[in-house]
Amino acid sequence: MSGRLITVEGGEGAGKSTQIKHLATSLELAGRDVRTTREPGGSPGAEAIRALLVSGETDRWDPVSETLLILAARRDHVERVIKPALAAGEWVLCDRFADSTAAYQGAGHGLGRDWVREIGRLTLGDFTPDLTLILDIPVGDGLARAGKRGGDDRFERMGTGFHDRLRRAFLDIAAEEPVRCAVIDATAEEYVVADAVRKLVADRLPDSGLSAAGGVDG
Amino acid sequence: MSGRLITVEGGEGAGKSTQIKHLATSLELAGRDVRTTREPGGSPGAEAIRALLVSGETDRWDPVSETLLILAARRDHVERVIKPALAAGEWVLCDRFADSTAAYQGAGHGLGRDWVREIGRLTLGDFTPDLTLILDIPVGDGLARAGKRGGDDRFERMGTGFHDRLRRAFLDIAAEEPVRCAVIDATAEEYVVADAVRKLVADRLPDSGLSAAGGVDG
Repeated sequence: MSGRLITVEGGEGAGKSTQIKHLATSLELAGRDVRTTREPGGSPGAEAIRALLVSGETDRWDPVSETLLILAARRDHVERVIKPALAAGEWVLCDRFADSTAAYQGAGHGLGRDWVREIGRLTLGDFTPDLTLILDIPVGDGLARAGKRGGDDRFERMGTGFHDRLRRAFLDIAAEEPVRCAVIDATAEEYVVADAVRKLVADRLPDSGLSAAGGVDG
Repeated sequence: MSGRLITVEGGEGAGKSTQIKHLATSLELAGRDVRTTREPGGSPGAEAIRALLVSGETDRWDPVSETLLILAARRDHVERVIKPALAAGEWVLCDRFADSTAAYQGAGHGLGRDWVREIGRLTLGDFTPDLTLILDIPVGDGLARAGKRGGDDRFERMGTGFHDRLRRAFLDIAAEEPVRCAVIDATAEEYVVADAVRKLVADRLPDSGLSAAGGVDG
């Protein structure tokens, strides 16, 4: 049986990587084979491209070049890692995917979501996640959390206008594609959010083996 | 006054780099500011991407990823080098450009020229060379010349079917866009080809300062 692709999206400090760990654990306890991965990256080729994206000055690439590099990495990741994993029946949990490109490059950097959608379709055809979880958090809260992690403050320096556009883009995508996407309130405490995620996956993907009532199906 | 972009295309061993040197000399003698460049590469970012393209196994990238990397490099090259040079009035001579992508990735690797054209339009809009010289040579002659140079035989190993598709694609492009493109018989002796190139540029781009009769205008 083919596996499933679940992507987790959201702005800075929304808790994506933490929630992916909790969901991976729940799915493994439910008997699924789970693979966690991230973008940009996730395959040797894509990680080499990631190194180009994250090194050098912030204006090293113009937004169009940056998007093409991200899409080259995504294509490699999908063809070399995600599709083979799905074919082997694995449940693939991916930290960021195409919606991040629509939000960051399309809305944040002003290329337009239509442009990103069109070039994405040329790159991946109709390949799309089975489920996309959008972790939603007010911009100030997310940046405060991200700041606490002591990470790169490059995104903070972009100003709240940029982050407002990101948040709005993720919510717009969820409204436009309600079957694929679900918005999760990520302001709550970590385990409350994890419980909401688990219930949502149980509801949307019954073959997950997860129970909406809590815990793992008999 | 804005400069001009002349791209030089053709299969392996057609003599592109040699003919670019001769044309650059003629244009300089005619008083033009000339810049020669090449793809993939031509800007610091594009050269970093080129390093990803030419290193590793030949199947390191699938044709779609490869095309996206080439387009990311082209976008960087155009925005950071070619457009500023044209704005400064320079005549830019580029060894390979978008038609090589149409031929190698579109026809050679089977992605289709329409696909390459569409994704190219999303990357560069309506930016296009003022003139494209297609150096045409029978496949066997070109590969023999390329082999004499002692270069990588990766392209030779692809078989003559691949190279036949390349040659046909370049000739098709020239037939479809006769105003932008011109086919030059590259089987002749080096200086005969150089003379044909010079006359063609004189004819198509009168502001080159070149004389169709030979030599440099008064």
